[in-house]
Amino acid sequence: MSPILAILVVAFFLYCVTTSASDPDPIQDFCIPNPKFGSIKTAHHGSLPCKNSSEATTDDFIFSGIKGAGNFSDTGLAAISVNPAIFPGINTLGMSFVRADLKVGGYNPPHFHPRATEIAYVVQGSVYAGFVDSTNRAFARVIEQGEVIVFPRGLLHFLMNVGDMPTTIFGSFNSQNPGLQKVPTAIFGSGIHKELLEKAFGLSPKQIEAMRRRFNPKRVK
Amino acid sequence: MSPILAILVVAFFLYCVTTSASDPDPIQDFCIPNPKFGSIKTAHHGSLPCKNSSEATTDDFIFSGIKGAGNFSDTGLAAISVNPAIFPGINTLGMSFVRADLKVGGYNPPHFHPRATEIAYVVQGSVYAGFVDSTNRAFARVIEQGEVIVFPRGLLHFLMNVGDMPTTIFGSFNSQNPGLQKVPTAIFGSGIHKELLEKAFGLSPKQIEAMRRRFNPKRVK
Amino acid sequence: MSPILAILVVAFFLYCVTTSASDPDPIQDFCIPNPKFGSIKTAHHGSLPCKNSSEATTDDFIFSGIKGAGNFSDTGLAAISVNPAIFPGINTLGMSFVRADLKVGGYNPPHFHPRATEIAYVVQGSVYAGFVDSTNRAFARVIEQGEVIVFPRGLLHFLMNVGDMPTTIFGSFNSQNPGLQKVPTAIFGSGIHKELLEKAFGLSPKQIEAMRRRFNPKRVK
Amino acid sequence: MSPILAILVVAFFLYCVTTSASDPDPIQDFCIPNPKFGSIKTAHHGSLPCKNSSEATTDDFIFSGIKGAGNFSDTGLAAISVNPAIFPGINTLGMSFVRADLKVGGYNPPHFHPRATEIAYVVQGSVYAGFVDSTNRAFARVIEQGEVIVFPRGLLHFLMNVGDMPTTIFGSFNSQNPGLQKVPTAIFGSGIHKELLEKAFGLSPKQIEAMRRRFNPKRVK
Amino acid sequence: MSPILAILVVAFFLYCVTTSASDPDPIQDFCIPNPKFGSIKTAHHGSLPCKNSSEATTDDFIFSGIKGAGNFSDTGLAAISVNPAIFPGINTLGMSFVRADLKVGGYNPPHFHPRATEIAYVVQGSVYAGFVDSTNRAFARVIEQGEVIVFPRGLLHFLMNVGDMPTTIFGSFNSQNPGLQKVPTAIFGSGIHKELLEKAFGLSPKQIEAMRRRFNPKRVK
Amino acid sequence: MSPILAILVVAFFLYCVTTSASDPDPIQDFCIPNPKFGSIKTAHHGSLPCKNSSEATTDDFIFSGIKGAGNFSDTGLAAISVNPAIFPGINTLGMSFVRADLKVGGYNPPHFHPRATEIAYVVQGSVYAGFVDSTNRAFARVIEQGEVIVFPRGLLHFLMNVGDMPTTIFGSFNSQNPGLQKVPTAIFGSGIHKELLEKAFGLSPKQIEAMRRRFNPKRVK
Repeated sequence: MSPILAILVVAFFLYCVTTSASDPDPIQDFCIPNPKFGSIKTAHHGSLPCKNSSEATTDDFIFSGIKGAGNFSDTGLAAISVNPAIFPGINTLGMSFVRADLKVGGYNPPHFHPRATEIAYVVQGSVYAGFVDSTNRAFARVIEQGEVIVFPRGLLHFLMNVGDMPTTIFGSFNSQNPGLQKVPTAIFGSGIHKELLEKAFGLSPKQIEAMRRRFNPKRVK
Repeated sequence: MSPILAILVVAFFLYCVTTSASDPDPIQDFCIPNPKFGSIKTAHHGSLPCKNSSEATTDDFIFSGIKGAGNFSDTGLAAISVNPAIFPGINTLGMSFVRADLKVGGYNPPHFHPRATEIAYVVQGSVYAGFVDSTNRAFARVIEQGEVIVFPRGLLHFLMNVGDMPTTIFGSFNSQNPGLQKVPTAIFGSGIHKELLEKAFGLSPKQIEAMRRRFNPKRVK
Repeated sequence: MSPILAILVVAFFLYCVTTSASDPDPIQDFCIPNPKFGSIKTAHHGSLPCKNSSEATTDDFIFSGIKGAGNFSDTGLAAISVNPAIFPGINTLGMSFVRADLKVGGYNPPHFHPRATEIAYVVQGSVYAGFVDSTNRAFARVIEQGEVIVFPRGLLHFLMNVGDMPTTIFGSFNSQNPGLQKVPTAIFGSGIHKELLEKAFGLSPKQIEAMRRRFNPKRVK
Repeated sequence: MSPILAILVVAFFLYCVTTSASDPDPIQDFCIPNPKFGSIKTAHHGSLPCKNSSEATTDDFIFSGIKGAGNFSDTGLAAISVNPAIFPGINTLGMSFVRADLKVGGYNPPHFHPRATEIAYVVQGSVYAGFVDSTNRAFARVIEQGEVIVFPRGLLHFLMNVGDMPTTIFGSFNSQNPGLQKVPTAIFGSGIHKELLEKAFGLSPKQIEAMRRRFNPKRVK
Repeated sequence: MSPILAILVVAFFLYCVTTSASDPDPIQDFCIPNPKFGSIKTAHHGSLPCKNSSEATTDDFIFSGIKGAGNFSDTGLAAISVNPAIFPGINTLGMSFVRADLKVGGYNPPHFHPRATEIAYVVQGSVYAGFVDSTNRAFARVIEQGEVIVFPRGLLHFLMNVGDMPTTIFGSFNSQNPGLQKVPTAIFGSGIHKELLEKAFGLSPKQIEAMRRRFNPKRVK
Repeated sequence: MSPILAILVVAFFLYCVTTSASDPDPIQDFCIPNPKFGSIKTAHHGSLPCKNSSEATTDDFIFSGIKGAGNFSDTGLAAISVNPAIFPGINTLGMSFVRADLKVGGYNPPHFHPRATEIAYVVQGSVYAGFVDSTNRAFARVIEQGEVIVFPRGLLHFLMNVGDMPTTIFGSFNSQNPGLQKVPTAIFGSGIHKELLEKAFGLSPKQIEAMRRRFNPKRVK
């Protein structure tokens, strides 16, 4: 296969994958990406050419990767986001999900999903959880095992394990790729002009510098 | 309040509730039905006039009613369907959910949701689960605690507890009212012309009669 | 063309075809699949790469294949489902249609379309027709030439020619691929676990076996 | 009932009816407007408060009003547009339809539906039919009994009976209220500034005056 | 009119207004809220019962309220958000817009619209503008009079007038109520648990206290 | 690369581009077409394979091509339609825009966009502007600098500079490809059967001939 062709081929994959994605009504039963093309992934969700539907298998529709917690970060959070890149069966069906585990004292900072509402079910433990609406009111309290909280589409929300045992949460979304912006990192780790941040948060240049170092050590020279 | 007016008022509720419902993009943060009007319910999901958003409370967005299993039916299934009628916070947000518990040997017969894809997470136990696609192929196997199965929008699916302990499942939908048709009841308990059923299933008049009695004892005189 | 390349090429077709499909608002006037690539078909609806719009012809938008009835099956039904695979002009436009003919006594068993509402117009003859709603009520009666019945999205419906002359029906859908599940075949011909079927329908192992043989002779060894 | 209240009541109807309308996914099985409120109609499609679903009847879902042709206008066209105002069963289900009859030589001038694609099926006779795309190309030819033509969403299309027998067409739309703009009347009968029309069509003030008189005798003093 | 009735009436308005709102395809030409009911407003956008379409006037579709800048806040920003509450003509049509003026040195802090993409056109002046994507990369630079920037749906974006003359921006949205969350106020002025904020931003209790005082002086006792 | 392969490759581009397009909710942050493939364009909007999102640049999201007016046509109109073909950043985001300049006396004839609502903002000058609704009523008047008019989805609208200075308008759409049909050209320059036009407009064969020559000199032999 010539290099030009190879580029074209990769481009097709990227293109098809990225532009054909949309969450509205599916027009076929399902669309399982073809595992033969496993090494060509997109930045966002690694979709792949579809299998012929007759080659789909039961296992394409069952996900076994959230039986246990993922890897914990410094914030005491372990989140496994399950989208079509790792669970082919949900491709084009308008849903995805996440397993989030929080150590005692662990937290998920204020964040939001630009393209989905989230339903979060507490599988075990308890957690302080809530969201902020467009009028800057926080709706938050501790929720317990078996309770469910809804985070409306696109609104800021947050979690913190204030109990004395680990917490496990199962969250589901009405988009196959809800997106994610964590405020501290998106604001202080993204390279927004320092002066704007100083003004916006009323912090000194030094303070902003410290926060940028904290949330993106590499980007600050 | 005059009777005519009362009728009009009720009609408004019913009308507004039933026609304004649609699952696409919300255009406000949320819409909490107003509990003052608790006695006026629609057949489908009991929606109610909205609270002013400043009167919404944290508890409007948290649901505590699926901490335990619901009431078990003869089939060994206890299902609690959570829609805006019982969890106001999800109204207009395009999602709803269900807790389903299955006794050992319990089952949920082949059924489908006309308006949603379902993501089912096994909270505990194990279950034989699957769906049928448009080419009449069943995709099914036993899934265990922590596994997730997807039932594509509108396709027939089913569950049976083939293990030796109770099973609990958390299912979520990308519609606030996914709808439900259970095949045995919808077919044999709904009053479809006997001759059509005899032909369609290749059963004798007597057999059809037995099934109609089983699935709708009242309707068969 | 090398074998690897050929596989890639086919994969592209399948992928593009299957994932790009969605019924919401089109963003171009139309998209006629290119007939040069006629031999590469998908399982579902055989879409193909688009023609440049300047190469579209009037005949791309006119379908002549339902002037007469299709081939009759054992049930006395002849159905021609018209989707983008055989009528390129409707690709991406959110509609498709079907011609259904029923011999005297012929029937279409309870079935549903997972992704569309159907409007059925009786071109000639008369037919017993109806659907079942989520509360298991059948809405059905005989309709005559010139009458129209609506089958709401995703709900079970059925037809039987109870008159003394052939019936012709023109049905249209608000999806380019509404999907189809015929209950008897989907339930008894798909390989769902026997025990679940026995329980769900209250039939003996022998009866289930007979039905499986009837609706899928090959699958039952 | 006091006058103020009466106004409020009417306003509710109008408001609910007009703002709650949208064609995307329904969130209930159906919504039958309540016939008790038959005299309160909106300008567009006369929707009404819903019946409780348990009061819906089979006849709500069957339309018998297009068994014969409607009233013929001067252009030799008789069109019966069927929307939720006259066929309650389709309310909220995203589809509607029309029966159009054309006398020999009759025509439907260039027009378009702002909110829907149309599938037109020739029930009897033949007709010159077509549409114009965004590049100003007409796709048109004579189509015969049993043939189907698609008019993509929002594009100009037209019909003329060039045969020697009456023509009957059944058209269906993927919107419950597709809308309609007939070009001659919308342009020359609507009160657009004369100077703009003169320039736009290269016609003299006198010619424009004649056309305005033709297409809206009342508006031209 | 009795008090109970009055409450019901108001409730209808609120309910209809808030639940019927959705941005997808309109199903009528337009829906002008009725100005007679001007004092009944919802928290979000003050929609009102529709006028009969024959009572709509040309002025309902023309907005004259952004000829000049609005009132400037402390941040040097004057923003006039135009939604159906103040411009009835856009109700149900899926779009809205904003005029934003920035004094020299003025800024709009990082914020996002949960339900819309924004197209911002620089009417005069220049402005440092940009957004952050899901990988925490800022895309930003100074844009000048006549340039246009797009802020993808739901992503954080920001503006600062770094020039030496006032700036005027015209922004439009593909939702009639895009929503707005300004990060500093939504995070520090909304009542999120102090401990979570301390952890999330790595700030001391004292620093958090100062920020809460700055962004919501009233809420901090 | 073999010729057959080259055709396939081009076909893929065309196909993917044209069929994957739809305006509903995006499922990734953005999708920048890849400029390396600049010479492969589609008839409609020249979409191209996506860049890997990490290769997107700030300039992909900023458009500088409407700082000045475009080229004026005979009608005194200069319109620059900005879609994903010339502004890659808006691809898949559901919006596009146009700069329209009108000389004194210049006009934009009655036209409509089949797939979008338009918000038009008068940047400078004044203009007679309006639209026609489904009941053939024109809503039109002169609007001035700083005023905004809305043209509801799919309805006929028009503009004429009746002032004494040039006019500049910034229009935005809620579709990435709203489409355009200008009535005079679409009707008289598209090849619709002469007899139908004569009847529809009540013009003589000679008059129709003159109009066809005016609006499409090439097509009339």
